[in-house]
Amino acid sequence: MRAEIITVGSEIILGSILNTNAQYLTRRLGEIGIEVLYHTSLKDNKEQLKQVIKTGLKRADLLIFTGGLGPTGDDFTKEVVSETLGLKLYLDKNIKNNIQNYFNKNNKSMTPNNIKQAYIPEGSKSIKNDIGTAPGIFIEWENKILVLLPGPPREMQHMFNKYIIPLIKQDCIMKETTIKTIGIGESHLETILKDIINSGDNPTIATYASEGIVDIKIVAKGNNEDYVNTLLRQTIEKIKDRIAENIYSYNNETIEEVVYKLLKENKLKIAFAESCTGGLITSRFTKIPGVSEVFDRGIVTYSNISKMKELNVKKHTLDKYGAVSKEVALEMAKGLLEKTNVDIALSTTGLAGPTNGDENKPIGLVFIGIATKEELIAKEFRLSGDRTSVQNKASLNAFNELRKILLNM
Amino acid sequence: MRAEIITVGSEIILGSILNTNAQYLTRRLGEIGIEVLYHTSLKDNKEQLKQVIKTGLKRADLLIFTGGLGPTGDDFTKEVVSETLGLKLYLDKNIKNNIQNYFNKNNKSMTPNNIKQAYIPEGSKSIKNDIGTAPGIFIEWENKILVLLPGPPREMQHMFNKYIIPLIKQDCIMKETTIKTIGIGESHLETILKDIINSGDNPTIATYASEGIVDIKIVAKGNNEDYVNTLLRQTIEKIKDRIAENIYSYNNETIEEVVYKLLKENKLKIAFAESCTGGLITSRFTKIPGVSEVFDRGIVTYSNISKMKELNVKKHTLDKYGAVSKEVALEMAKGLLEKTNVDIALSTTGLAGPTNGDENKPIGLVFIGIATKEELIAKEFRLSGDRTSVQNKASLNAFNELRKILLNM
Repeated sequence: MRAEIITVGSEIILGSILNTNAQYLTRRLGEIGIEVLYHTSLKDNKEQLKQVIKTGLKRADLLIFTGGLGPTGDDFTKEVVSETLGLKLYLDKNIKNNIQNYFNKNNKSMTPNNIKQAYIPEGSKSIKNDIGTAPGIFIEWENKILVLLPGPPREMQHMFNKYIIPLIKQDCIMKETTIKTIGIGESHLETILKDIINSGDNPTIATYASEGIVDIKIVAKGNNEDYVNTLLRQTIEKIKDRIAENIYSYNNETIEEVVYKLLKENKLKIAFAESCTGGLITSRFTKIPGVSEVFDRGIVTYSNISKMKELNVKKHTLDKYGAVSKEVALEMAKGLLEKTNVDIALSTTGLAGPTNGDENKPIGLVFIGIATKEELIAKEFRLSGDRTSVQNKASLNAFNELRKILLNM
Repeated sequence: MRAEIITVGSEIILGSILNTNAQYLTRRLGEIGIEVLYHTSLKDNKEQLKQVIKTGLKRADLLIFTGGLGPTGDDFTKEVVSETLGLKLYLDKNIKNNIQNYFNKNNKSMTPNNIKQAYIPEGSKSIKNDIGTAPGIFIEWENKILVLLPGPPREMQHMFNKYIIPLIKQDCIMKETTIKTIGIGESHLETILKDIINSGDNPTIATYASEGIVDIKIVAKGNNEDYVNTLLRQTIEKIKDRIAENIYSYNNETIEEVVYKLLKENKLKIAFAESCTGGLITSRFTKIPGVSEVFDRGIVTYSNISKMKELNVKKHTLDKYGAVSKEVALEMAKGLLEKTNVDIALSTTGLAGPTNGDENKPIGLVFIGIATKEELIAKEFRLSGDRTSVQNKASLNAFNELRKILLNM
C-alpha cells in the first residue's frame, strides 16, 4: 500500500511549527509495513485542498489527513473531502451525544460550532477521540482508504495507535537499523557497497552524510519476523565484512555514547584537555546521562599560560614548536593524566580558524593526544570547513581515536 | 508570487529527520513577501519526482527544491528537473575547477561521481556553494522560477540567504532585523505587543520561540531606503519602550556574542568553571572567532574532587551544603578568579537530570556564581525540561547574568 500524508493548516505552511505529525505517522506506518511516498502540506484553503485530494487519489492508496477537523470556520477537511468524493454529510446522533458528554464532563458549554463535528460522510466510520472533541473519520472509497485525524499531536497519535492501526495493518513486517560510520566519505562508501545497495529493493539501503559521519540505513520487509531479522542480519554482515573498521555503531548510537559505554564496561575514568575544540568534546560527553561514573573533569586551556599552569606544558615546548604541535598535544595529555589520576586523558590543539593559519600550519590542522598509563600518542589531522566544522570534525575524530584505543585496552 | 517547497530525499520520507528545511525556507520567503502554498516531500524516486515537478508547475510560480544534489547515485534532482523541463545538461568547467580545488585544498581525491556535480542545465545559473561541494541551480523557465538547493541545512541556508534572495526579491526595498529577548514567554510577549503586531502588514512582525529565547523578527518594505529605515527604527523604538530589559540584541546576535563584545570593549578577560552545564558555556563561547582575546580558560569540574583541586572549593562546604548549592557556586567562582587572575569568573552547579533530584533539590535547580574583583554573587534558577533543555537554559541564563553585570561595570 502506498500512502500520502496530507497536513492541513496554516501553522505548518507559515513556518510557525515543524511538521512533527508527518514524521510520526511516517515512522509508525513504516513499522507496520506501509510505505509513505509523499508528504504534502497546505494552508486552510478549500480549492487548494480539493486539488491536493485529487492528486493524492491518483498517486496513493491511503491518504492520511491531519488537521482541519475542529469547530471553527477554517476547519473544513471533512467537508472538502466529502465534496471531492461526492459523499453527503449526515448528523450522527451518537457523536453528538459524545461531544455533549465531553462538554458536560469538563463543565464547559457547547457552542453551535461544535455540532459541526457530529456530521460525518455517508458510508464512513467515525473514530472516537478519547482526548479532545473532534472525532476522526475512516473512509473506504473505490479501493482507496482516507483517514482524517485531528491536528493536535497528542490526540492524533492516540487515535492513530488505538483505532486506526488495527484498521489498516498489513500482513507485512518491516524492520530497520542504522549503521554509523566515520572516516570514509559518502561517495567512497557507496562505491565500496555499490553491489549491496543495488541488489534489489528488499532490504532498501540508503546513506546519509553529515560532517564526517555517514549513516547507512537498512530497511527490511517480509511476511514473518524470522525472515526479516535474517535479512537484516545478513545485510549487516555483508557491510561489516567490507568496512568493519569504519563502523562505530550497529545500533544508531552517537560516537560519544560508544566511548561512554566502553569506559563504563572497562571501569575506566577519563578527562579532557581541549584547546581548539573549546569545550565541545566535554560538552558532548556530558550530555550523556550518568556520565559522572566515567568522567572526572575537562579543562579548556585556550591561552598558553593556562596550558602551562593547568597541564604543565613546558614554555620551551611552546616556544620551539608552537601551541599547535604534536609535542604540545603530547605534553597536554601527559600533564592532564598526571594531574588527575584518571585512566585515560585526551588533548586537542589545532587551528579552527578563520584566521591565523599559514602555509606550514594551515587552518584545519589539529593534533589529538592520548595518554594512558601504558602509552602516550598523538595524531595529526587536516580537517576542512569553517570554524564550526573544524571543531565538530576534531571532536568526532577525538572520540573515534578514544574508541579505537579502548577497543584494544 | 506563489511558492512550493519540494523536499527530495529518503531521510524525510522515512521519518528519520524532521523537515526543518521546509520550515526555514517558508519563514524566509514569508519575510520577503513571497507566499508559500505547498510543501511536498518525496523519496529519491525519478518517476515520482517528475510527477511532483509537473504538479508544482501547475500550481506555483516558484519551486524550491532541497536535496538530491550530491554526488551519489540516488542524487538526481538536477537530472530529473532538466529532463522534465526539456533542458540539456552540460559540463561547466568553472564548477569542475571549483570542485577540484575543494578536493585539493582538503587533500582528498576526487572520484568520478563528483564530476556529476559540475553539470548544469542549459540556460540556468549555477549557484556557488561556499560550504560544501554541490552547487545550487537557478532556472528561469516559461515565467516560472525553479531553485535547486543542497539538502544539508547549513549549506542550504547560507546559499539561500547569500545568493538566492537577491535573485528572487521583489522590486521593493526590504530590510529586516531580529530583536532577541530572554526571560519573557512568547504568549506574554505577544499580549504586550499585540497592537504593534496587528497594526498592518508593513512592517510584518513575527515571533519565534525556542527554549528561553523569543526572537521578534521585523521586516519592513517600501520604495525608498529612507522610508524603510524609518519604519524599521520606529517599530524597534515602540517595542523597546515596552520590553527594553528583556532585549539582549537588536541585531540578531547570540547572547554569547553580546557578552564577547562587552568584554572586548571593556578590555576584560573571562574564565568559566562549569559543573551541570558540562562545558556547554565554554563550547558556545569558543565558537566565536577571535574569542582568545577575552577568554582565558574553562574548567569542567564534574567530580567533587576536581571542584576541590581545581577551584579550591572546601570539603566542608561540599559536605554541609552539597555540590548543588549557592555556597559551592560562590566558592567555585571565587576559586577560579583567584587561580586565573581574570577580571570575571563564572560558575555553574545544578541538577540537569534525569536522575538524582529530590524534593529539596529538584531536577532543574541551577546556581550561577559570578566573581569579579569588586563583587561575588550567586543566583538560583529553577529550569524546566529534560537534561539537554536544562543545560541549554542554564547556559543562556549564565550569559544573560554576565551581560547584565558587564553593562554595569
